[in-house]
Amino acid sequence: MTILITNDDSINAPGIRRLVDTTEDLDCEVIVVAPAQPQSGMAAAISVNKPLRITQHEDYRHARMFTVNGTPVDCVKLALNAICPKTPDLLLSGINHGSNSGNAVTYSGTMGAVMEGTFNGITSIGYSLLHHSLKADFSMCLPFIKEITNKVLQAGGLPKGVCLNVNMPAEVVPKGIKVCRAALGHWSEEYKRYEDPLGNPFYWLTGRFVNEEPDATDTDEYFLANKYISVVPVRTDLTSEESLPQISKIIFG
Amino acid sequence: MTILITNDDSINAPGIRRLVDTTEDLDCEVIVVAPAQPQSGMAAAISVNKPLRITQHEDYRHARMFTVNGTPVDCVKLALNAICPKTPDLLLSGINHGSNSGNAVTYSGTMGAVMEGTFNGITSIGYSLLHHSLKADFSMCLPFIKEITNKVLQAGGLPKGVCLNVNMPAEVVPKGIKVCRAALGHWSEEYKRYEDPLGNPFYWLTGRFVNEEPDATDTDEYFLANKYISVVPVRTDLTSEESLPQISKIIFG
Repeated sequence: MTILITNDDSINAPGIRRLVDTTEDLDCEVIVVAPAQPQSGMAAAISVNKPLRITQHEDYRHARMFTVNGTPVDCVKLALNAICPKTPDLLLSGINHGSNSGNAVTYSGTMGAVMEGTFNGITSIGYSLLHHSLKADFSMCLPFIKEITNKVLQAGGLPKGVCLNVNMPAEVVPKGIKVCRAALGHWSEEYKRYEDPLGNPFYWLTGRFVNEEPDATDTDEYFLANKYISVVPVRTDLTSEESLPQISKIIFG
Repeated sequence: MTILITNDDSINAPGIRRLVDTTEDLDCEVIVVAPAQPQSGMAAAISVNKPLRITQHEDYRHARMFTVNGTPVDCVKLALNAICPKTPDLLLSGINHGSNSGNAVTYSGTMGAVMEGTFNGITSIGYSLLHHSLKADFSMCLPFIKEITNKVLQAGGLPKGVCLNVNMPAEVVPKGIKVCRAALGHWSEEYKRYEDPLGNPFYWLTGRFVNEEPDATDTDEYFLANKYISVVPVRTDLTSEESLPQISKIIFG
């Protein structure tokens, strides 16, 4: 079995090595293809206007290590087209240093890579820890990662067009695993305003997730707040099939 | 009424001016906030690690024109946080120079901006012409854009969490409008391989969309091939609700 591992925090983030560690008991070849530089917030972005290079690095344990000077999706695409000898059986992305719950999945480079794997028919899972620090303690969630990965492999994969977005509480032994939907929300108070030495303004993204369903008890935000691991099935087909009749009525009367 | 217009091809792309033109008969204030540089393929990427600046340019007709040194989503977020005096009533993105049909919606900066508008409760529509040239002829699709925008406004907007991805055939008078789903597919033959003067390889994204449903007669790919305009409702909530039971079974047995 071949496992492709990537992330959006770059090859230098501890989270990706901890993710490699979780595969040690599997009889598998691991190929890591990660961004050379941090790519948080890059979503499913692809590099259309620049040359991409592949660099091989020293092996880490049982994993061969490569970087690409691009986005997480560039990493997956180049892995499939120019690095992996055959299509991997599994793609893991992470462990992300920070949350990808709620609608953050849309902006997430971690999940962009996971969706790219899914488009290519590969069983794909993204793992994120709710802690931004490079010194985050991943140890308490590693057994749960092994369990989720194993269960998915034992089931022979995921439904077509579906991947998993797994978020894990930090600094606590998780109470357990919950399969659930993502909370609906948006971001507010998004920019800090500065002035440069000439008095010209510039802006830096900050932002705070506003959970639009604070009373719901079936969302990832709810379960994470209660120290559970959330497993959200994510679809790559973005068509809103259920609103086709309503949109037809709007356009055609 | 206030309309926010953006795109991913940058302020210098003719398509965004043609989109402004389609709003001339509406009693509206138009604010254009577009990327300073081309941002094709940037999906819903956000700039988390760099300062953003807003630059005002000469008005174009009835539109005030601004650029941001970031992605399409950066443009929308900064427009809402620092430029627009109140939340716009409508967001239009495009007219993109090139297709965003099939699963290209996932990589599309045009549609990343549209999804950002939707998260913020704004009625949002993306328009794309199936022609990459800067000299593309938009004239034959402009009446259809006016019609679709007007119908959506007359209906009082779109269902919550849903936006529209409109693709239009090039170099032809469209036969009409079809409300439909996006074809499922993936990309293949994705990179051209080069060698630099030192003999080191580099790669450039190319790629060909593989329609996995070539015989389906209800997809955007089908209707566009038959010279219709496709209107696909796109959801911003990525949870695959329908697979929750199956994923629970996989994880919990």
